[in-house]
Amino acid sequence: MATAGKVITCKAAVAYEPNKPLVIEDVQVAPPQAGEVRIKILFTALCHTDAYTWSGKDPEGLFPCILGHEAAGIVESVGEGVTEVQPGDHVIPCYQAECKECKFCKSGKTNLCGKVRMATGAGIMMNDCKSRFSINGKPIYHFMGTSTFSQYTVVHDVSVAKVDPQAPLDKVCLLGCGVPTGLGAVWNTAKVEPGAIVAIFGLGTVGLAVAEGAKSAGASRVIGVDIDSKKFDIGIGVDIGVLVDLTDGGVDYSFECIGNVSVMRAALECCHKGWGTSVIIGVAASGQEISTRPFQLVTGRVWKGAAFGGFKSRSQVPWLVDKYMKKEIKIDEYITHNLTLGDINKAFDLMHEGGCLRCVLKMHE
Amino acid sequence: MATAGKVITCKAAVAYEPNKPLVIEDVQVAPPQAGEVRIKILFTALCHTDAYTWSGKDPEGLFPCILGHEAAGIVESVGEGVTEVQPGDHVIPCYQAECKECKFCKSGKTNLCGKVRMATGAGIMMNDCKSRFSINGKPIYHFMGTSTFSQYTVVHDVSVAKVDPQAPLDKVCLLGCGVPTGLGAVWNTAKVEPGAIVAIFGLGTVGLAVAEGAKSAGASRVIGVDIDSKKFDIGIGVDIGVLVDLTDGGVDYSFECIGNVSVMRAALECCHKGWGTSVIIGVAASGQEISTRPFQLVTGRVWKGAAFGGFKSRSQVPWLVDKYMKKEIKIDEYITHNLTLGDINKAFDLMHEGGCLRCVLKMHE
Repeated sequence: MATAGKVITCKAAVAYEPNKPLVIEDVQVAPPQAGEVRIKILFTALCHTDAYTWSGKDPEGLFPCILGHEAAGIVESVGEGVTEVQPGDHVIPCYQAECKECKFCKSGKTNLCGKVRMATGAGIMMNDCKSRFSINGKPIYHFMGTSTFSQYTVVHDVSVAKVDPQAPLDKVCLLGCGVPTGLGAVWNTAKVEPGAIVAIFGLGTVGLAVAEGAKSAGASRVIGVDIDSKKFDIGIGVDIGVLVDLTDGGVDYSFECIGNVSVMRAALECCHKGWGTSVIIGVAASGQEISTRPFQLVTGRVWKGAAFGGFKSRSQVPWLVDKYMKKEIKIDEYITHNLTLGDINKAFDLMHEGGCLRCVLKMHE
Repeated sequence: MATAGKVITCKAAVAYEPNKPLVIEDVQVAPPQAGEVRIKILFTALCHTDAYTWSGKDPEGLFPCILGHEAAGIVESVGEGVTEVQPGDHVIPCYQAECKECKFCKSGKTNLCGKVRMATGAGIMMNDCKSRFSINGKPIYHFMGTSTFSQYTVVHDVSVAKVDPQAPLDKVCLLGCGVPTGLGAVWNTAKVEPGAIVAIFGLGTVGLAVAEGAKSAGASRVIGVDIDSKKFDIGIGVDIGVLVDLTDGGVDYSFECIGNVSVMRAALECCHKGWGTSVIIGVAASGQEISTRPFQLVTGRVWKGAAFGGFKSRSQVPWLVDKYMKKEIKIDEYITHNLTLGDINKAFDLMHEGGCLRCVLKMHE
């Protein structure tokens, strides 16, 4: 493309400091270096993890930065040595990389690739330990290796999934985080089997994706617990005793999709003695800890967790896109609002009001 | 036998109150009722769980009682409806029952049979909710459904494993608790695979059995941590960082065999990101809790536990006895002392001194 090798100036939402409204700025986006990919972001959704870092509670949070990690776009240009994508490819940026070479990727036991983790955690690119974003020469940090609240972003090549060009990017952008996180926790982490009883704490996009995953896995009963009456199933003030009584001894699987350490404990303790497995998906505030009596584990309960649903991003996001195209998984139903980049602060307000699952922003007019 | 149907008066070590020396008394042992088995105990070992309840820290502990749960003997008589064992059978009493009929036994997922749990927790027999032990008409509570510190005991039929009559009872009595607890945590709960790196916290009988199990499972490296210099491997003051450095990122499996909640945390946190699994075996004091940051689980560590190593007692204890007879597992090496029932207080002193693994008591002169 004509922009290849040149700095692109485009619009981006910049978080200058915690809790202050994002500012739409003209940002300079440097060309991709070796092993990097510059992407024209077409659509991005908002996720609670963006809000978490923005709130200042994330100890890894760096400011000023460009947030955003659930998006879809088209490759604009690639740096030296990039072979797996080329300009024009439709892609989903992946905050969880997959290099296929490191100890983690080769283990066959986890999706937590370690190759670019140090750089993405530090808000920079691995090649030169610098940011590709700047405003009048002052660097702006990357976020989660994705920074999708910008019309153009630069990511590591191990963080890009190439997807079916027929897929609607305004929908499949959700496969960058929330929906796979829920589905994968059921399919990969818990491995829910037919007939199982499942409890879900927190019925946002992730929790509802857990419900969809549990249904597709053949769960005989799915119990949702949320304090938002719009998502009411069992209701406010449910205690573990109620759940244990309802299920003749406890649930086979539970999922915490909130990030509340007290709920994490409840989710474990409502599991059935002998085999109940609880999966932590929600991200708790920094410094908070989970607790329980060890007897809960000695008597057979299992406590685990998952990031990005255990999916290997570059290998499996395209597969999820294909499943969506074949109508085997839902995405559209999670999108409750559509706005544009200029409305991003309003979009965050909507997210906190509770009636919103996912708000998708159109990035270019 | 001539004693069938009659009360037997025999010697037993009675715990009248917490921390007071056990008293060797003449105890009356009632005949077995329906579904019960009276066993002549020939050999019993001492385990830390006996000491734990004796200390008064066990909230389920009831006094006066007859402790003991790691033993072997010969069936003296059986109650109505008992079909799976008969007088003369060589048996190992099992504190973890196996009825083969309850939700737990049928689940295929756990060894935690629930059938007689309420009764054994209350120190009584299920048939009439009373004890079979008394002294001059005053009842003495059962313990763990086994009470093997008596020359004769009465247990539920679901709590008796019939074993090879050729097996030396002064050795295989250890298959009633400690050795299977360690081996099974490796084989059944963690499912350690060839090449894995294993850390063991606490090198008593259970921890050493974990090491034996890990070796037989093909572990490439087994790291033991204990504060007792006689069992020294890495040593006092080891911190997680040392272990993580030693193992390039952490261990694949860890086992807590002490019952210390701080060690349980360390055991989890020294596990490798992405897949490390920590198994709690030790019994913590009442009211104590385990804690960690949920991030430890979200990044792929798994926290679980096991009781009796996940072995189904009646089905698998005979199989373990056979493995011992075929020299596939060790038992003799754990027996550091041999005494008689009259020396039981001395035996507990030895256990606390640390140079002792298992002390086996001969029950009849």
